[in-house]
Amino acid sequence: MIEFWFCIGSTYSYLSVMRLAHVEVATGVRFHWRPFNVRTIMIEMDNIPFRTKPVKAAYMWRDVERRAVLYGLLPKLPAPYPLAELERANRVAIIAAAEGWCPAYARESYRRWFEAGEPAGSEPNLSVSIGAAGQDTERVLRLADSDKGKADLDQATEQAKALGIFGSPSFVVDGELFWGDDRLDDAIRWLRQMESGPPD
Amino acid sequence: MIEFWFCIGSTYSYLSVMRLAHVEVATGVRFHWRPFNVRTIMIEMDNIPFRTKPVKAAYMWRDVERRAVLYGLLPKLPAPYPLAELERANRVAIIAAAEGWCPAYARESYRRWFEAGEPAGSEPNLSVSIGAAGQDTERVLRLADSDKGKADLDQATEQAKALGIFGSPSFVVDGELFWGDDRLDDAIRWLRQMESGPPD
Repeated sequence: MIEFWFCIGSTYSYLSVMRLAHVEVATGVRFHWRPFNVRTIMIEMDNIPFRTKPVKAAYMWRDVERRAVLYGLLPKLPAPYPLAELERANRVAIIAAAEGWCPAYARESYRRWFEAGEPAGSEPNLSVSIGAAGQDTERVLRLADSDKGKADLDQATEQAKALGIFGSPSFVVDGELFWGDDRLDDAIRWLRQMESGPPD
Repeated sequence: MIEFWFCIGSTYSYLSVMRLAHVEVATGVRFHWRPFNVRTIMIEMDNIPFRTKPVKAAYMWRDVERRAVLYGLLPKLPAPYPLAELERANRVAIIAAAEGWCPAYARESYRRWFEAGEPAGSEPNLSVSIGAAGQDTERVLRLADSDKGKADLDQATEQAKALGIFGSPSFVVDGELFWGDDRLDDAIRWLRQMESGPPD
């Protein structure tokens, strides 16, 4: 099992969110979806990769686009960025993970954000994505906006920090950290080596 | 042909410098080695990935180490960082590129830096690496420390900037930019697509 730590609001996480179901089928590896708030961690670290760095931001969109095409995705980029409602998007994701409908919710959020230009976490994206996962919007948003909903996201973010996570997406295999959609193959290789045990 | 823009002083460039000769043999792709000063560009952009970010720096060393093992390399990490003599290391690399001995010089510089703990650009690494490439140290250092040697590095750095380069290593295929050792496969794929022409 690989822990998939991600934050709706991260651009490169689009690639992982959209392809993880396929990877699961192709490899037999199971993923545990762990939403958290990467923005809090990045602000604490003064890690601002794009907002003040237009050349790097332009490259990032181009790189995401090229990689998306390799995965059979057709985003319309640049997507609206940064997200105004990142926390709400991820408070819902935390509930979704606890209840078992996180992949469906996250995929629809990202699809609408990256392919239809609707910011994740804001309406109409938020309610439509909850509905697309077969859930009652009112119930879910009441939970997400509660004190417990807020505390649960904070707690997940603290857990991420304790694992040394500083970016999204991150993959964790038995405590070993792999950062970036482009390290997924390395994470799977690590899992296989662990499962096969030490060489004789 | 792929342009390989790199700066001795970048940590991830170790991976590319050490494996490019193998990649060339395995793929038939030729690389044009283009040294530049990435530090100038990163300071201009206020892009400081590691110096003030210990968690990210620790991850970077671990990531470089894991990738190095995949490539059959055995670095002793963390290596001394940042380099005190980054400019001198790259002024020599510019001369080496013009004269055709850049890969040999860069590989020995990185090998001694990452595998023996001797900072690149400083003595004894600098003279030994020039010698290992079959060159006369005194002649090369006189050129490297001349006004022309300094101007040539500045000019290469301006050319990198004009291509949108902001990090090392970067691969450029007919103007298309790929940043990072982990984008080398994408750059090669891009080159193949370009060579095969548009689909009928």
